[in-house]
Amino acid sequence: MPNFKITIEYDGSAYHGWQRQAEDRTIQGEIENVLMTMTGDSVTVTGSGRTDAGVHALNQTANFRCDTSLTSNAFLKGLNSLLPEDIVITSCKTVPEKFHARYDVKSKVYHYRMLNRLLPAAISRQYAWHIRKKLDLGAMKEALCSIIGSHDFKAFEGSGSPRASSIRCIINADFVKTEDDYLVLRIEGDGFLKFMVRNIVGTLVDVGLGKITPDDFKQILVSKNRNLAGITAPAHGLFLMEVKY
Amino acid sequence: MPNFKITIEYDGSAYHGWQRQAEDRTIQGEIENVLMTMTGDSVTVTGSGRTDAGVHALNQTANFRCDTSLTSNAFLKGLNSLLPEDIVITSCKTVPEKFHARYDVKSKVYHYRMLNRLLPAAISRQYAWHIRKKLDLGAMKEALCSIIGSHDFKAFEGSGSPRASSIRCIINADFVKTEDDYLVLRIEGDGFLKFMVRNIVGTLVDVGLGKITPDDFKQILVSKNRNLAGITAPAHGLFLMEVKY
Repeated sequence: MPNFKITIEYDGSAYHGWQRQAEDRTIQGEIENVLMTMTGDSVTVTGSGRTDAGVHALNQTANFRCDTSLTSNAFLKGLNSLLPEDIVITSCKTVPEKFHARYDVKSKVYHYRMLNRLLPAAISRQYAWHIRKKLDLGAMKEALCSIIGSHDFKAFEGSGSPRASSIRCIINADFVKTEDDYLVLRIEGDGFLKFMVRNIVGTLVDVGLGKITPDDFKQILVSKNRNLAGITAPAHGLFLMEVKY
Repeated sequence: MPNFKITIEYDGSAYHGWQRQAEDRTIQGEIENVLMTMTGDSVTVTGSGRTDAGVHALNQTANFRCDTSLTSNAFLKGLNSLLPEDIVITSCKTVPEKFHARYDVKSKVYHYRMLNRLLPAAISRQYAWHIRKKLDLGAMKEALCSIIGSHDFKAFEGSGSPRASSIRCIINADFVKTEDDYLVLRIEGDGFLKFMVRNIVGTLVDVGLGKITPDDFKQILVSKNRNLAGITAPAHGLFLMEVKY
């Protein structure tokens, strides 16, 4: 049976996350609905992983197997003509039957965007967390160093996530300051726990605001105690940028 | 009576343009409502000019006179805490009583953003006109040259606009290609007729698509005949960037 890999860009603002739900609109649900329309079959779309409600993606990946004579190009055109405009399929190609969008992931790259200035923005406000008070970027960078490598990230894990282990490896993490006062955390890991990036960001912002020190941040990681970490940063600053296989 | 000049950034997506209307939500209407709440008085906010439904602004300007003891900083904070998040007051200062946000305008700068590639974008789709077919930028630049200087822009004027004359001077106009296939028209003029930028863009796109030549474009301008020009480009690509005094 042909196996198709798709890459998906979406604005998560209007969705209850990636994963199909009975009642609420989700990205997976929308794509599966269109595939049902196109093929007449119930097709399961397997994502590289879930994204939470309100989180965006530039390059989410997924695969679906489907007994069809439609080409990958026909799926690309058909999906894009039938999907709402806040979901765009940016590529579709056939892959070996054994390819699995979740099991085969090597690493993922997320970006978290913050706007750090007194006044908020009206344009693109839906794509960054506005933080009024000046952040100490030096202190945040120092704290960030402590998460590079393999660690038990239990302190930064949201409750209710299904996983065998809470150990993950962060391959790269840095901050980029863009023009117009945007500050972007870029983070690559072999996997991420539920709310992990957003909890790390919330705690890094506590460092940036001087509420805790870079060393406190490191101690929170080591403690494995979620209650010591900061708030979960809002979903709308988070972008799934790349899934590597 | 104190006279206040404000600068306003807004995402026009949810609004029926700048100008106050009895039924529909407008930028001017929202700001006047908040000023009523803050001062208890009916305050008229005079914009540098109207923007149409769906058009955005980075730096719209306006002024209002108000018999108040509130400082400009109190207005800045109060307006931003009470306005919806898609309207942000980026500055507020007292100006000489004779300052008039419309009469005193020397020139205005607009940007029109196009995304020129096969696939649309999900992220920031509300801030650019998506054009699938490859545009001939060289031809568009050649056509653009013909609007520099003073001309009668009747061919690019929407109907129903109140004005004494349809002659306007274009001081600067060029295209910038940004990364990710965005193409931005930057245009500065001493004033603009209703729909003028959007009608120019719609006609320039006809040039870019090879439907008409740069010389045809010039002849349309000279003809003063609106029926010969192209479509009115969609509102959501247009940004009022700067108002000069």
